[in-house]
Amino acid sequence: MRIGVVAPGRPIDPIVAARAGAFAAIAYPAIDLVFHPQCFMSEGHFAGSDAVRAAAFLDVANDPSFGAVWFARGGYGSNRILAEVMPKLAPAARNKSYAGYSDVGFLLAALYTRGIGRPVHAPMATDINRAKGDETVARTLGWLLRRDRQGLEPGLAGRPAVAFNLAILQALVGTPWLPDLADHVLMIEEVSEPLYNVDRMLFTIANATQLKGVAGVRLGLVNDIQENEPPWGETLEFMMDRWCRDMGVPYLGRAQIGHAQANMVVPFGIA
Amino acid sequence: MRIGVVAPGRPIDPIVAARAGAFAAIAYPAIDLVFHPQCFMSEGHFAGSDAVRAAAFLDVANDPSFGAVWFARGGYGSNRILAEVMPKLAPAARNKSYAGYSDVGFLLAALYTRGIGRPVHAPMATDINRAKGDETVARTLGWLLRRDRQGLEPGLAGRPAVAFNLAILQALVGTPWLPDLADHVLMIEEVSEPLYNVDRMLFTIANATQLKGVAGVRLGLVNDIQENEPPWGETLEFMMDRWCRDMGVPYLGRAQIGHAQANMVVPFGIA
Repeated sequence: MRIGVVAPGRPIDPIVAARAGAFAAIAYPAIDLVFHPQCFMSEGHFAGSDAVRAAAFLDVANDPSFGAVWFARGGYGSNRILAEVMPKLAPAARNKSYAGYSDVGFLLAALYTRGIGRPVHAPMATDINRAKGDETVARTLGWLLRRDRQGLEPGLAGRPAVAFNLAILQALVGTPWLPDLADHVLMIEEVSEPLYNVDRMLFTIANATQLKGVAGVRLGLVNDIQENEPPWGETLEFMMDRWCRDMGVPYLGRAQIGHAQANMVVPFGIA
Repeated sequence: MRIGVVAPGRPIDPIVAARAGAFAAIAYPAIDLVFHPQCFMSEGHFAGSDAVRAAAFLDVANDPSFGAVWFARGGYGSNRILAEVMPKLAPAARNKSYAGYSDVGFLLAALYTRGIGRPVHAPMATDINRAKGDETVARTLGWLLRRDRQGLEPGLAGRPAVAFNLAILQALVGTPWLPDLADHVLMIEEVSEPLYNVDRMLFTIANATQLKGVAGVRLGLVNDIQENEPPWGETLEFMMDRWCRDMGVPYLGRAQIGHAQANMVVPFGIA
């Protein structure tokens, strides 16, 4: 299977691509990992201009020789290409999976909203840099190649689910890019935010008209928490109980997703 | 006029209350500034628990002896009392103005949505601490006491307008707490955020279904900008042009609002 890799947000180092490619070649010889040159471009904050990143995404999504699209990295920017790319997706784009998390949640949401392909919350190419990062990226490659269920988040239990970074989900709420998540288990995770901001984002989720029908909420990792002055007095469990009560849906406990080595795979919908 | 002061987010120092009170006594002897004891309470991040802050807000809003409610300070938390206080507002709450900005934009929005009283984006009691802060708070007191137009944002021009902190507006988008802003000029300001996050928030505003009918957008101060790594390559004017184009509304230029001494008064609706 040929897998095309693009970076709709920030660029990656060619060394990272080489490392991920080497691991894939050994562990998944049936996979041909093709890094689009756009992954290594740089323009200000981004891996090339919006036009360059949009064109690269369309290159791989619309190429029938690729069986899947793997996002190289997040880091802000995939929202800026939605309006350009979504109307230009060809029939070949419908027959493949799209794997990533964090900022590329914008693209996963937009694809899921339109029923295009199979969006999957899953580790990205740069996760190879983590300690035991080979295990991390193996979850994505195993799922893309042969629907290997070993890397799936263990609590999926046959129910439709989605997984989002909380800040990305908040940014989608109220826009037409947010899919209908009725009857889905909604998993959220966050990184590098102070807890007052996590609380404010949970307020939005709890009050979002579009999210009223979700089956329940699970909380992934919330790590690298930024300091709050004064210290935030509430636990994450307390915050989840509170906002899920306001939302009128059950808090279903923790989930194994997040910006970490243990990040598991959550195919959007039923796995 | 008796003006009741409450703190729906974080507490203030009694010295700040004394300073604001002393200035009001000299410059606006017709105003009797009454600081609710809740302003000085502290529980973790907040000026008292959610229940305490909600009760204090209802105390002043529902007391017919107060001609206006002045918010002491922002700092996160007013969203947490919306569900409790909004159904309990009595007839007396309809006959007064509510003045503040930043985090209390949550309350201003909820009041405006329900047509209760007169929400006003305006400097708060703690702004007395700024250099020439007396001029800053005088704008609010002059407006509340005698509809003094000297403190009004100079570009209002008889058109309906609202003013919000961008992060607060983003947190409201997609929820029933956001008012119908059709035909309003929308002013936004931001403080202490990196520009990638300002850009992401502008994405939400530009794509928000609820905001499609605004007459245009004006940008207030964006200050204390947090460092972006790598440096953000776009100017604020470029960003506003871009997202207003996506939104399909005119960018109407800068506005004199924000977290600064020069923050001007914007009564919600027509001034």
